[in-house]
Amino acid sequence: MAKSTSEEKVHSQKEWAMVIHGGAGTILESEMTPEKFKQFHGALDSALTIGQKILASNGSALDAIEATIKFLEDSPYFNAGRGAVFTHEGKNELDASVMDGSNKEAGAVGGVTNIKHPISAAIKVMTNSPHVMMVGRGAEQFSKQQGLEQADPSWFKTDRRWESLQKILQKEKSTGAVYEEVDSKFGTVGAVALDKNGNLAAGTSTGGMTNKKFNRIGDSPIIGAGTYADNQLCGVSCTGHGEFFIRYAVAHDVAARMDYLNETVEEASDFIINTKLKEVDGSGGLIALDKNGNYAMPFNTAGMYRGYISPDERFVKMYKE
Amino acid sequence: MAKSTSEEKVHSQKEWAMVIHGGAGTILESEMTPEKFKQFHGALDSALTIGQKILASNGSALDAIEATIKFLEDSPYFNAGRGAVFTHEGKNELDASVMDGSNKEAGAVGGVTNIKHPISAAIKVMTNSPHVMMVGRGAEQFSKQQGLEQADPSWFKTDRRWESLQKILQKEKSTGAVYEEVDSKFGTVGAVALDKNGNLAAGTSTGGMTNKKFNRIGDSPIIGAGTYADNQLCGVSCTGHGEFFIRYAVAHDVAARMDYLNETVEEASDFIINTKLKEVDGSGGLIALDKNGNYAMPFNTAGMYRGYISPDERFVKMYKE
Repeated sequence: MAKSTSEEKVHSQKEWAMVIHGGAGTILESEMTPEKFKQFHGALDSALTIGQKILASNGSALDAIEATIKFLEDSPYFNAGRGAVFTHEGKNELDASVMDGSNKEAGAVGGVTNIKHPISAAIKVMTNSPHVMMVGRGAEQFSKQQGLEQADPSWFKTDRRWESLQKILQKEKSTGAVYEEVDSKFGTVGAVALDKNGNLAAGTSTGGMTNKKFNRIGDSPIIGAGTYADNQLCGVSCTGHGEFFIRYAVAHDVAARMDYLNETVEEASDFIINTKLKEVDGSGGLIALDKNGNYAMPFNTAGMYRGYISPDERFVKMYKE
Repeated sequence: MAKSTSEEKVHSQKEWAMVIHGGAGTILESEMTPEKFKQFHGALDSALTIGQKILASNGSALDAIEATIKFLEDSPYFNAGRGAVFTHEGKNELDASVMDGSNKEAGAVGGVTNIKHPISAAIKVMTNSPHVMMVGRGAEQFSKQQGLEQADPSWFKTDRRWESLQKILQKEKSTGAVYEEVDSKFGTVGAVALDKNGNLAAGTSTGGMTNKKFNRIGDSPIIGAGTYADNQLCGVSCTGHGEFFIRYAVAHDVAARMDYLNETVEEASDFIINTKLKEVDGSGGLIALDKNGNYAMPFNTAGMYRGYISPDERFVKMYKE
């Protein structure tokens, strides 16, 4: 009997796996055109292939999420890197974080404007500094010192996001009210991977929210809120209304519920997103993997761009299905 | 029997309570002079009186921690507000955060240089903005817009901290190595209060670490790491080697262990500080109150400046005793 249980466990253990998201609060299904569908679906599918190549050939979870998130940062379709939303002042301010489940080391950058791949800067903070978090100009100086690729701020600019800001500024001017675009703050990207050595890594990257002011920092660069990883439990990356994810320490809470309540990754993630956060109108979702490569990807918004890949399963989804 | 249990509970419930800290990693007991003892002890004792006056006369937990922390920020003896340590560039960069356990709202500022009371700025972010965290110049602009008292950066300067930086810079110059002063990064202040209405609030304020570079952000302005509060569970404020407190989501973990493992505030706090963090050489301590006004104040350093007050108990302590 003991042997059979153990064999079952081995069977349910994936050799490697990766789960990704391109943000909750997607384009409404009713407004999705075939062309847009192809763009988003294609980008998410390509991102899965990038992680697959690394993980299937014995690469590390950390390398897999870095390469995957860099690709999503370069893609103009998501609110991270190129394609990030604009602040009130018409700038792209980027946040990213990473956690390595093998040693619980972590790194994050907040409010950076000229680092081509914020996720790589977060990794450098983790591996090449004694710190976990750097912000603004200091983080930019560090990334330069580390030899990371710099980008002219214009690299991040897309017409779609620029027009979103202009529309809001116009609305503010005509009504006198203050708007921070709730709808378009949800395009954050993230990835969680499990490699053949049983290591979990999680990362998140974002441009924050359209028309954001006062150097606001959301949950994406906050370890415990937007990102968490622990080889013994799970890896987590969140997306949504960041303030709620900070106040509820969402990413750490998934790990805590698995650890202390013995919940599965699906139970813990689902309870937090669909009960705890839903009850307080905290909109968003998360992706997570447990140490066996089982995934959870709950969201309480209309949709969440997401995908999963392992040696025996692969899919990209956008809405509830 | 049921009645008697209920009466016992009422008996163990404090009408109000407050716990404070002035940092872990204090001046070594062997180097403590009677004069210094008087200064530190006196400041902590005065801080308790400030909270006492507010809480005993029906004031809110939030008002109590704000007034108490403002006093500790103004005191030159602690690494927060006036008396903050210096960055590598010779600046005082201040971080603070607050959480209101009654609604789990939270606020934080990071890397601010001219706000006289960073704790008040964190409270304004919580109460008067849709955000949880603002950093740098944006946070400064917001605080000004909110009418908070501004200070010339020279207000925060003390000779003692300036000399600490000069000593390290000299050491770096002569050895070529890079130092960030571990010893003097521990003077963070914090307070947790329970008011007569059963509301818990927690706040933390710091100057970070001597010779810090790259706009490093520690745990003090991170909700879930340095500060947490939930009326149903506890209020927590941390002090110590901030990177570990972020990676282990210490403040939220106290609440999670109480919630999911049914541990007392003492059990949860002690396990995290003296087992979890100790095992990975994460030095520091925390203060916490549960919803009945019971306190915990474990630390794994030589000392921690701390104090507690309730209608029937009052003390200030510095070392293990």
